[in-house]
Amino acid sequence: MATFSDIGASAAINLLSAIVFLVAFAILRLQPLNDRVYFPKWYLKGIRGSPTHSGAFVRKFVNLDFKTYTRFLNWMPAALKMPELELIDHAGLDSAVYIRIYLLGLKIFVPLTVLSFAVLVPVNWTDGTLEHSKDLMFSDIDKLSISNVAPGSNRFWAHLVMAYVFTFWTCYALYSEYKKIAFMRLHFLASESRRPDQFSVLVRNVPPDPYESVSEHVEHFFCVNHPDHYLTHQVVYNANSLAKMVSQKKGLQNRLCYYQNKYERNPGRKPTTKTGFWGLWGKTVDAIDYYTEEIEKLSKEVISERERVISDPKAIMPAAFVSFKTRWGAAVCAQTQQSSNPTSWLTEWAPEPRDVYWANLAIPFVEISIRRLIIAVATFFLTFFFMIPILFVQSLANIEGIEKVLPFLKPLIEKKAVKSIIQGFLPGIALKIFFILLPTLLMTMSKIEGHTSLSTLERKSAAKYYLFVLVNIFLGSIITGSAFEQLNTFVHQSATEIPKTVGVSIPMKATFFITYIMVDGWAGIAGEILRLVPLIIFHLKNAFLVKTEQDREQAMDPGCLNFASSEPRIQLYFLLGLVYSVVTPILLPFIVVFFGFAYLVFRHQIINVYDQKYESGAAFWPDVHCRIITAMIISQLLLMGLMSTKSAEQSTPLLIALPVLTIWFHRFCKGRFEPAFVKFPLQDAMVKDTLERATEPNFDLRSYLQDAYIHPVFKDDAFERPATVDDEENNILVPTKRTSHRSTPAQSKYGSEVSSDTGA
Amino acid sequence: MATFSDIGASAAINLLSAIVFLVAFAILRLQPLNDRVYFPKWYLKGIRGSPTHSGAFVRKFVNLDFKTYTRFLNWMPAALKMPELELIDHAGLDSAVYIRIYLLGLKIFVPLTVLSFAVLVPVNWTDGTLEHSKDLMFSDIDKLSISNVAPGSNRFWAHLVMAYVFTFWTCYALYSEYKKIAFMRLHFLASESRRPDQFSVLVRNVPPDPYESVSEHVEHFFCVNHPDHYLTHQVVYNANSLAKMVSQKKGLQNRLCYYQNKYERNPGRKPTTKTGFWGLWGKTVDAIDYYTEEIEKLSKEVISERERVISDPKAIMPAAFVSFKTRWGAAVCAQTQQSSNPTSWLTEWAPEPRDVYWANLAIPFVEISIRRLIIAVATFFLTFFFMIPILFVQSLANIEGIEKVLPFLKPLIEKKAVKSIIQGFLPGIALKIFFILLPTLLMTMSKIEGHTSLSTLERKSAAKYYLFVLVNIFLGSIITGSAFEQLNTFVHQSATEIPKTVGVSIPMKATFFITYIMVDGWAGIAGEILRLVPLIIFHLKNAFLVKTEQDREQAMDPGCLNFASSEPRIQLYFLLGLVYSVVTPILLPFIVVFFGFAYLVFRHQIINVYDQKYESGAAFWPDVHCRIITAMIISQLLLMGLMSTKSAEQSTPLLIALPVLTIWFHRFCKGRFEPAFVKFPLQDAMVKDTLERATEPNFDLRSYLQDAYIHPVFKDDAFERPATVDDEENNILVPTKRTSHRSTPAQSKYGSEVSSDTGA
Repeated sequence: MATFSDIGASAAINLLSAIVFLVAFAILRLQPLNDRVYFPKWYLKGIRGSPTHSGAFVRKFVNLDFKTYTRFLNWMPAALKMPELELIDHAGLDSAVYIRIYLLGLKIFVPLTVLSFAVLVPVNWTDGTLEHSKDLMFSDIDKLSISNVAPGSNRFWAHLVMAYVFTFWTCYALYSEYKKIAFMRLHFLASESRRPDQFSVLVRNVPPDPYESVSEHVEHFFCVNHPDHYLTHQVVYNANSLAKMVSQKKGLQNRLCYYQNKYERNPGRKPTTKTGFWGLWGKTVDAIDYYTEEIEKLSKEVISERERVISDPKAIMPAAFVSFKTRWGAAVCAQTQQSSNPTSWLTEWAPEPRDVYWANLAIPFVEISIRRLIIAVATFFLTFFFMIPILFVQSLANIEGIEKVLPFLKPLIEKKAVKSIIQGFLPGIALKIFFILLPTLLMTMSKIEGHTSLSTLERKSAAKYYLFVLVNIFLGSIITGSAFEQLNTFVHQSATEIPKTVGVSIPMKATFFITYIMVDGWAGIAGEILRLVPLIIFHLKNAFLVKTEQDREQAMDPGCLNFASSEPRIQLYFLLGLVYSVVTPILLPFIVVFFGFAYLVFRHQIINVYDQKYESGAAFWPDVHCRIITAMIISQLLLMGLMSTKSAEQSTPLLIALPVLTIWFHRFCKGRFEPAFVKFPLQDAMVKDTLERATEPNFDLRSYLQDAYIHPVFKDDAFERPATVDDEENNILVPTKRTSHRSTPAQSKYGSEVSSDTGA
Repeated sequence: MATFSDIGASAAINLLSAIVFLVAFAILRLQPLNDRVYFPKWYLKGIRGSPTHSGAFVRKFVNLDFKTYTRFLNWMPAALKMPELELIDHAGLDSAVYIRIYLLGLKIFVPLTVLSFAVLVPVNWTDGTLEHSKDLMFSDIDKLSISNVAPGSNRFWAHLVMAYVFTFWTCYALYSEYKKIAFMRLHFLASESRRPDQFSVLVRNVPPDPYESVSEHVEHFFCVNHPDHYLTHQVVYNANSLAKMVSQKKGLQNRLCYYQNKYERNPGRKPTTKTGFWGLWGKTVDAIDYYTEEIEKLSKEVISERERVISDPKAIMPAAFVSFKTRWGAAVCAQTQQSSNPTSWLTEWAPEPRDVYWANLAIPFVEISIRRLIIAVATFFLTFFFMIPILFVQSLANIEGIEKVLPFLKPLIEKKAVKSIIQGFLPGIALKIFFILLPTLLMTMSKIEGHTSLSTLERKSAAKYYLFVLVNIFLGSIITGSAFEQLNTFVHQSATEIPKTVGVSIPMKATFFITYIMVDGWAGIAGEILRLVPLIIFHLKNAFLVKTEQDREQAMDPGCLNFASSEPRIQLYFLLGLVYSVVTPILLPFIVVFFGFAYLVFRHQIINVYDQKYESGAAFWPDVHCRIITAMIISQLLLMGLMSTKSAEQSTPLLIALPVLTIWFHRFCKGRFEPAFVKFPLQDAMVKDTLERATEPNFDLRSYLQDAYIHPVFKDDAFERPATVDDEENNILVPTKRTSHRSTPAQSKYGSEVSSDTGA
């Protein structure tokens, strides 16, 4: 029952911490030393050179041009300046569409805020129910909410009408956004230059043939069934163990590099290491010799393993990337059924080479079905019962438990200060660790499900995470008690009781969620822009591993938009906004500020920092759309429940039409737009084919596609840095300005703007 | 609380009535006069000649060869004799697969019956709970059911294990059946001879083009986007008003024919008619002259309307049947997206020409969405609230109401005998009429939804009818009260309460359902074979309209399997069998008898009587499969509810795994088999194309496809009897033996067998 001043104080604290983050960011980003942490995107594009090239020694590391500090907030207008088309060109469609989610949040909630403040706040405020009732604690915030309206009052008509208005507005915004993004996707696909995935189809579950190898079988099958279009194919090798070895080798090379650097800086003393685990115990040996030897040994193993994989027919998986002479042929093959057995010769669009998740390409149909069942059951248990193992760990990880397992720590622990810290700290730590590990855990589960591309894996993880957030953060905060207890409650309540139970608690939790928005939303986003973890890691690597410019390139960790864990969090804000729009409108401005601020920050980040690992062409939008629809339906049902406890049951028939209409709207949008995200129209394929035949009649497609879908471990040098086998291929990643012919106007403009900003 | 003797008596009555029907059938079918009612299929095939051709006058109408009567049941082995492959050849795959539903019933329930009688009946019988309890009425039947087991008894383990065994057996039977039928379908499609729909695709939502007509637009689009495969196309005319006129003309011709016959038989007196509605009032005129004139007038109108339709560009709908040079080309076009706007250029497999529902071909995408929403809401209201209008009609249609509206009937009604009849009769009649009209109503609703083929319309109607049967017959019988009251109950009960409420009532309703099975199942099926209504109509037509052999052909009404209304009724038996298999096993033998008897009867009917209007290649099987899965899940949930009221809640975790596994099984089957019913594999298309190119290199496909998809009203003579434009095309429907080259061995064998049977 917080008052305005409580909320104000909380807002002040969170604003202050956000501002501290922003100021820290403003100062840190101007230091040339950190340039590669805050502008890695430009380095990767090859537009920005290293600031350490020129100038005085000190100025290499610290920015002494104090004038630039006075402009410390001008990254904000800079972030907004780049037009959307150039943004797509610069950062890819995925990123450009991802920040449109925040824009959609603004589009939906700014009018909702205005309307609810114009209509609902006065309606709530002028009814004096809470003032007249004596037994209720209430605050000013509650006076602005629906709680202040007397049961059975005619004022509920205002809420009812507003619920309709909000639903229609949200649907309209969703519709126009879906339309826009479908158009952007089709335009993006149509204007893309030649890419291997446009001509290729991933074929899985190639049936075994006793007389032919997989490769021959694939070739014969497609020669017969797509005689005019089949061009070539690449079989998939099971190179998982090879990939593991190569990654081991890379780790050893890093260590060797570290010791070599150490030796160079201090040539008097040869560095030593121990042969045991992580160099912690075992025999002491000369480090450089030891690692050189180890690497050589491993190199030989890698070579023999590579030969084994290539020559052993058992290492060939029953899957292949089949390429066609035309985009039309590939589009046809991807969309049709090949064999009368629908579980063999399964075809689908090939993901782009960077996007392939190689380990999952060979799972048979029946096994995939069983894996999905297991993961579905596991997701259910994880969502509703995750507290049980955590409680178990917590019960072990108390002071008595530690004393029992590690008795020698007893004297230390028994000290009062240490004891109180442990007691305060331990119960939370298991939960905290769980939440940190959750995205990884969900990603592992999605991998077990057997999806074949990274983009799909991310989408599936996001779906699981959304369920978790919905149940454990949203419902868990409204109805106190663990998700398991809630499940128990819901199972034993009727379909009409559940929205009532939840709906009644909704207005009471408004202040909690306002605080949540400020802490998780405002301060969290400000923390995002500071990039504290990559900053520290970069400087550590710089200190110990970097020798050449090339090494410094690799030490950069631009990171990327993590769709799997960040999108479900945005969805929580949509859900909160929609649920509270009618109930407690005072929450809406906080949501609007979150969306606005996040839009700004992420636009800055995708321009200057993130480097996406793959490009899926905004394939995630149907999921985003679907989840906002879910949020709408939840908000409508909860409003219905709340209304019926306010002696306004006569509104139920009117309110029940809302979810029906919303579901219908969803189905309509699905039919209208979803094919644009799943299929590829033949007309567009034909247009591109025709155009290409006219402009480049002699292009050798076969050699272009030859090695496009080779497992990354077979590309020797490529494995060190997976080459982007798209149109950016020609941009060799050296720090020279303007080697790229495509991204000239935008990148140079913004590149130089940002460069001058850091005063290099 | 019926005892064995009650059930026995009921069984005896129903068996008796079934036997009466069967004897009547056995006698009637042997009369040459009825030959066309009971063996129309053979006449349509052209295998069987009219028995009136030869022999003494009396023997034309009555069978005097009494020896044949002694063999009056030998239609039963005859029905079973025809092997399945010949049956498919003779009656089509739809019919052959339809009767496999009954076979599936036998496959599932015979082992279930044996097992439950071997295990569950002894377990139930030997526990003496009901004997020891005093306040409960019970019967011998209840002693065989789960009610006889004491709450919390360990004997429930038997039921639990059996629930698992039954589920696995049912799933196995469903799986092997789905596999078999998918194979049959693919084999059927692969072995079919050339048909227009193999080469054609239905294109809808052709976008308007300001510079081109629809026809030109279609041609240009497909010439560009399928350059190697496009052959020709046919636009769709909006000929609905023309079709109405033609059907009017046909009605008038029937009347004319009736009066001409009348005049021929009684040349002294010229027949007259009245010009008003149905010839009931108005001016009296010479009937023959009047109708001749009317027909002439209408013929002229038909001609001018036909010309208008063909020449008016507005009568061309934005849809077309596009034909390709190869089956491969058609398969590709049907399965891919054509345009970047997913709501235009929608392609799907063309239904076979007989199967097209012409009136729905031109509905735009948005309108279809809205229509579906409306019909979905209407279906919900129809299912749950249909009692409200009926109660209203019933309240009007009482004696006082009739006296008020038709006061002159008062003296008649007031008579005691009449009054009691009306009072007993009236309340039921509104309901009865509703149930008779229900399939038509549901079909109309499906038509409004905008499906484009008759087979889809039937499937969609069946889905709605199934919902109705499930809610109003199954649940309505278990929980007394209208569906609306049930809905109210369910909405206010928790998810765990609902199965309990229903589950508890299940054992008590066993006797009711046993009686239902006997009345509706046994006697109903026996009534089906008698064909009383077609028998009467045939003789009426024969008496008044028939002049020539040709007319007699047309007077035959072979009818067809009515999937839309009969399949949901079979599903009710699956549901009852699965629900009671664990609870009251005594019900199972009645189900088994039903399935066996129905299989026999319908096999006889599809061999000798029914003539399907179209052939969909068993496209309905996924629906059948899905509904049996639904029945399984319902039975599992109800068992869970029942168990938890028997103090056996500890079984819940074990039982909840069953629906999860069942749903998973459904998804597995869907992925494994459904594509065979929706898509057409390119491999098979290619095989057929190649084969055909080799055997008939000079076939003129264009002229073959020219008129395949012309609206039936444009085929002048064809409209009188929609020609079957398939391989049977050559069978001119004249009563000569063996004109067909394909159906020789089976048909001649069975044809002659049946002929000798009727002693012609």
